[in-house]
Amino acid sequence: MENPVLVEVTRGPIVESFHRGSVAIVDGDGRLVFGAGDIERPSFPRSAVKPFQALSFLESGAADRFGFGDAEIALSMASHSAEPRHVETARAMLAAAGLDEGCLACGPHWPGRHDDQGELHRRGEKPGRIHNNCSGKHAGFLCTCVVMGADPRGYEKAEHPVMREVIAAGASMTGTPHATDICGTDGCSIPTFAVSPRALAHGFARFVTGVGLTATRARAAERLRLAAAAEPFMIAGTGRFCTRAMTALGNRVLVKTGAEGVFIAAIKELGLGVALKIDDGATRASEAVMARILIDLLKLTPDDAGYAEMQDLANPPVKTWAGDKVGEIRVTEALDGVTG
Amino acid sequence: MENPVLVEVTRGPIVESFHRGSVAIVDGDGRLVFGAGDIERPSFPRSAVKPFQALSFLESGAADRFGFGDAEIALSMASHSAEPRHVETARAMLAAAGLDEGCLACGPHWPGRHDDQGELHRRGEKPGRIHNNCSGKHAGFLCTCVVMGADPRGYEKAEHPVMREVIAAGASMTGTPHATDICGTDGCSIPTFAVSPRALAHGFARFVTGVGLTATRARAAERLRLAAAAEPFMIAGTGRFCTRAMTALGNRVLVKTGAEGVFIAAIKELGLGVALKIDDGATRASEAVMARILIDLLKLTPDDAGYAEMQDLANPPVKTWAGDKVGEIRVTEALDGVTG
Repeated sequence: MENPVLVEVTRGPIVESFHRGSVAIVDGDGRLVFGAGDIERPSFPRSAVKPFQALSFLESGAADRFGFGDAEIALSMASHSAEPRHVETARAMLAAAGLDEGCLACGPHWPGRHDDQGELHRRGEKPGRIHNNCSGKHAGFLCTCVVMGADPRGYEKAEHPVMREVIAAGASMTGTPHATDICGTDGCSIPTFAVSPRALAHGFARFVTGVGLTATRARAAERLRLAAAAEPFMIAGTGRFCTRAMTALGNRVLVKTGAEGVFIAAIKELGLGVALKIDDGATRASEAVMARILIDLLKLTPDDAGYAEMQDLANPPVKTWAGDKVGEIRVTEALDGVTG
Repeated sequence: MENPVLVEVTRGPIVESFHRGSVAIVDGDGRLVFGAGDIERPSFPRSAVKPFQALSFLESGAADRFGFGDAEIALSMASHSAEPRHVETARAMLAAAGLDEGCLACGPHWPGRHDDQGELHRRGEKPGRIHNNCSGKHAGFLCTCVVMGADPRGYEKAEHPVMREVIAAGASMTGTPHATDICGTDGCSIPTFAVSPRALAHGFARFVTGVGLTATRARAAERLRLAAAAEPFMIAGTGRFCTRAMTALGNRVLVKTGAEGVFIAAIKELGLGVALKIDDGATRASEAVMARILIDLLKLTPDDAGYAEMQDLANPPVKTWAGDKVGEIRVTEALDGVTG
């Protein structure tokens, strides 16, 4: 079964490229509100499940024990750009637990913005593991280690006590047994488990409605959601989709991107979870689709705060290097039913 | 008609993402030697037609007039990384014609490598138009302007005498009328015209066989081909596909990438042109497919020079940020017929 074309990329009069994918919108009881494409095909949710991976950090009491607020809690489920505040906060989280960046298992990569790369260049430094977009999540894992009294070494392995909790939370939230036959290794060296868009969407509907969750878990989920809404910068960074969308929409939505064209949303006022996967892994497509879905589900109109920003995310221009608009990224009619 | 899946990207036991596309392999007489997917659908060839766009630079006598050698000629059809030698050569080409980078119409962007970005950062500079990956091509246009006695201003417009020659060469080589209904604007601000993979492949078969070309054009094409083979670094840059493949294979092939998942090759010893377009525009897929096709068409075996390099390009690993292999990019059986 071919998934439908969800996004077209135009240049002048021609559709130059296009992206296929699948979308599931599910409520807390697991009812499918909208589906497009093969929503049963498992794929890795990658960083889109960071809110689930951060549950143990809250449930273990680690966040409270170290006196963390919204900024640290948001960073514990971030794919951040390694801007100075991200890096400083991740370092401070590790220091609070008596650890340092040498404990991080994620590999190094450059900060996302040229300005921040330039700062490293001018200091003659290379990026470190603290600059990895997942360093806040890993700092959360390490803080959880300390609170659990576990050896921090090997925390990234499936058999480590902390990772066992993280994996169990993912399996429970998505209703998908997390066995080795669906296990890969994520870019930050921890296990990732393939789940279907439908199961992933249901997980985020549970996350935001609390349906079927223990009181402890429901509280942890709510605290994560509100931390992201309070500190949208910490979730991603300057100019990034998740930061822009949550800044535009306040605490109406939690949105989280994942590598290889995954995106999730959890919408409190509607009690819905959204999950999508672009077949080819393109972020430009996953972003446009998610923006369009949020506009449609929230029935945003030009009078609403955040409409212009979301519209810009749903229908961005294609530009020359000189800055002239020569095409656009646009969502197709395959998403029309979302407004239904 | 859905194009076949040409490339799979795996992570652990799962195909995480996949890429569809079309491939045409054509001989100098226009006979289709191999086809996969919809090879009649027009799309923009982008930088993959730079060898055609550089023909006027040779045919006008500009390259000879300014005493240019293989390095400058290769750079005139490059998508370079703005490494120091690229930038210096583009500047020298402009200076030879009495011009400077202020004449360039292409917009600025950062060099491709962190090392070269760092050099700009350390000097407190921003990238300029000379760093645009197309600056060598534009320098060639401007040199052609001077030789033709045309005003360099507006050289990027379709109605300028130089661009008219460039457009006419593209139309002639591909046998595709270059009218406004298939015209978009490329990233470097010049017109780009949508052509089918089949027409594009035929154009590169003509380029390398000379079938149907005037003697002047055939000489220009041969000089471009040999310049690229002699200076593969100038075509792209350190670690880049075109540079690696032409270094590995010497003058057996001309290969050239284009944005949005386009790739071409021209194979002298077989008299064949190859053109492919990945539906979603992914370079990782266009590269793997082109490498596999070159291995198969040239019947490379582990004993051949260049085999290991081409195999690495055809089947690259997916790695974590820590450098561990956790998956692979692989070409599917849709390309099996190429060896036939």
